Amino acid sequence: MAKDSYLVGLIGSGIGPSLSPALHEREADRQGLRYLYRLIDIDRLGRAPEAVGDLLRAARDLGFDGLNITHPCKQLVIEHLDALDPRAEALGAVNTVVLDDGRAVGHNTDITGFATSFARGLPDVPLERVVQLGAGGAGAAVAHAVLTLGAGQVTVVDPVAPRAAALADSLNRHFGGGRAVPAALRELAALLRHADGVVHATPTGMAAHPGLPFPADLLHSGLWIAEVVYRPLETELLRTARALGCATLDGGGMAVFQAADAFRLVTGREPDSARMLADIAELAGAVGTPR
Amino acid sequence: MAKDSYLVGLIGSGIGPSLSPALHEREADRQGLRYLYRLIDIDRLGRAPEAVGDLLRAARDLGFDGLNITHPCKQLVIEHLDALDPRAEALGAVNTVVLDDGRAVGHNTDITGFATSFARGLPDVPLERVVQLGAGGAGAAVAHAVLTLGAGQVTVVDPVAPRAAALADSLNRHFGGGRAVPAALRELAALLRHADGVVHATPTGMAAHPGLPFPADLLHSGLWIAEVVYRPLETELLRTARALGCATLDGGGMAVFQAADAFRLVTGREPDSARMLADIAELAGAVGTPR
Repeated sequence: MAKDSYLVGLIGSGIGPSLSPALHEREADRQGLRYLYRLIDIDRLGRAPEAVGDLLRAARDLGFDGLNITHPCKQLVIEHLDALDPRAEALGAVNTVVLDDGRAVGHNTDITGFATSFARGLPDVPLERVVQLGAGGAGAAVAHAVLTLGAGQVTVVDPVAPRAAALADSLNRHFGGGRAVPAALRELAALLRHADGVVHATPTGMAAHPGLPFPADLLHSGLWIAEVVYRPLETELLRTARALGCATLDGGGMAVFQAADAFRLVTGREPDSARMLADIAELAGAVGTPR
Repeated sequence: MAKDSYLVGLIGSGIGPSLSPALHEREADRQGLRYLYRLIDIDRLGRAPEAVGDLLRAARDLGFDGLNITHPCKQLVIEHLDALDPRAEALGAVNTVVLDDGRAVGHNTDITGFATSFARGLPDVPLERVVQLGAGGAGAAVAHAVLTLGAGQVTVVDPVAPRAAALADSLNRHFGGGRAVPAALRELAALLRHADGVVHATPTGMAAHPGLPFPADLLHSGLWIAEVVYRPLETELLRTARALGCATLDGGGMAVFQAADAFRLVTGREPDSARMLADIAELAGAVGTPR
């Protein structure tokens, strides 16, 4: 008999507003699965990030089929796993754990989710010179994705210079020397003049951090812009870029495809990503559909 | 917004064949609730019965709304609870834990479930002299229920004499001296000649323990017979008793009403016990409907 009942959770800090429960449960409902997605917020529990090991063991004992893992536990969870997908291993971060027959296997669907969203939303854009703004956790995953998609060189810009340098180092170790270069924020104007496109992976543009991540006059119509922020789907950066005629990609696709990839890993069933994209447009309060 | 998503588990040993997941989930589905009921089998986990405290804490951390507790953890769980329903406290056994806002409160729906089933299935039978066979965990709960329903005196018979004595002691402490009396198995023939009815609370009659719990010729048409075994619903004891014209009650009602009471405690919603009785008739493989 095929399994048709799934218990999934998200472990992390400050995850109350997450759209993952709704994204997973709506798709599961349409597929006729019994599916429950629970938030396991370490802040609410008063637990340290290191408690992710205990919580993982608890989830195994209590019959969870899978977990999503988010900040600040994506690295800390690794030592508690039985096996690791090569992409998650290369990145050193896990956002999805499949629990099956007592084994815990780590994956990273932030990488695959961004790659799918990019390939679908910006299929024909040039990738020789990519500038990426933001070298945090999301930045690391999308930089991996962009290089996996064949980018010639990614220049990593972050206000915290050592963070940009560390990410570039790690990318070069995995993808080969020279594919990634760190740069300072003050070099951004010169970099954007000659870039093919920009991946934006900082919190700027979210409801709590409105505005543009850099001056509007650095944008020009020769750039594509890929956004990681998805609440709102239409950030000021995307609005400004589209007004200039830039090709753009909002963050909804990454949010959907990371969830869709996790759903597939946990259930073995194919999610309908078109329906999930319609869900996120509604859930994230977008005016139109994701682009 | 009313809560409409529930995560419930059963902690115990050898619980693979339990009908509780199906009983709870079917009723929740009819009510349009998202409801997942998971088996947490300490044997499969390789954990000792004392691990019930760890598992309870894990369930709180991971967002469970309630737990059923069964053998061998019904007593062990008590020290880990924040509060106890008076019936569960009197019995010293908990089969249902409601987890709400960080608090764990213990209940015993074996007592209330048997009482409801009895009042519904044998509403007008005399209760002056009740003989109860079996002084184990289920026996303790149903003896409490029978005295709560107003039985004059319950004579507790068990092949293990100290077990019968201990249960009678405990019942007398709670209900007042003389309401319960222990007796030896060899006294059964004399006891049944003058009894109003028999509560059967041993495993005899289950698929793995077929047969009658005592010789058929001790039965007579003046006795009512209440059965705790519910797989099969039609035990040899019930079949034999009905052939003699005895009023009978099968174990399906207790199984349903303990589940219905737990469902109500966890969700705050009223289960439809008629539909649940139809479920157990189907699930327990009965030919007809429960009586």
